[in-house]
Amino acid sequence: MARDVTLTLDEGMRFRARTGTGHELLLDASGDAGGVNAGPRPTELVLVALGSCGAMDVVSILRKMRQEVTAYEVSAHGETASEHPKRYVRIELVHRLTGPALSEANVRRAIHLSMSRYCPVFALLAPAVPIAVRYEIRETADGIMSSGEVRLEEAEAAP
Amino acid sequence: MARDVTLTLDEGMRFRARTGTGHELLLDASGDAGGVNAGPRPTELVLVALGSCGAMDVVSILRKMRQEVTAYEVSAHGETASEHPKRYVRIELVHRLTGPALSEANVRRAIHLSMSRYCPVFALLAPAVPIAVRYEIRETADGIMSSGEVRLEEAEAAP
Repeated sequence: MARDVTLTLDEGMRFRARTGTGHELLLDASGDAGGVNAGPRPTELVLVALGSCGAMDVVSILRKMRQEVTAYEVSAHGETASEHPKRYVRIELVHRLTGPALSEANVRRAIHLSMSRYCPVFALLAPAVPIAVRYEIRETADGIMSSGEVRLEEAEAAP
Repeated sequence: MARDVTLTLDEGMRFRARTGTGHELLLDASGDAGGVNAGPRPTELVLVALGSCGAMDVVSILRKMRQEVTAYEVSAHGETASEHPKRYVRIELVHRLTGPALSEANVRRAIHLSMSRYCPVFALLAPAVPIAVRYEIRETADGIMSSGEVRLEEAEAAP
């Protein structure tokens, strides 16, 4: 299979991207770099891609497990090198799930399956940059929380 | 430095991303994967990030060289593995530039500088996946074209 995108210069540093699935988005640089912040930075989209890929996997796997998810937020934080090309040197993903009867074991298993088997963006980036993956689970928005970290190298929990 | 993004589940497989620079975008899965194609796929954003990062570098470097660019399009094509996690196994970028007096040597130098020194997304992905980078240059939209490939390992042309 293949993916295709096309980007066209609008003006300044602003580029308009069109994706093969029919969507359009603007990108722009900061004022410091000749842009006017009319859209996100390219490096932000790397984090959006990584976080959304994992989140879509996890929500899909949990639904197959009949685990109800009432709210789900994923944050991604990337630290960059101080020298050019200022690539990411460490990324942290945090999955924050709310659901009345979410099992921590199932959440851990869903996250691990995404990391080890399903997420094409994780598979692409993981050899290039350390990615720490954590989770926080609540029964209700202000309920008791359980939390932890999932490591790629740990054995996958039994279903 | 650091980048931060947060994604929130809207409904179905649709996630709303908010970036640290203040922008919002939707992501969604295809109908096959439980979504309704309300936004681009995570894997498409990887190509958008790579293409826009390179294009911003190249247009910025060419402007510093006093090279006028009247139109600029970048296309990115990614081939994926057939097996899960279906990661990219090959990416091709094509820079298509139009300008009345664009020097091929300057365009090659700008592209090479982006690949070797400035583009954080290229630096992140290049160790993980082969990325072929080509260019096409025209004086006018229907003018004579020169084209070629720029390789990371080639010596950088003298300024």
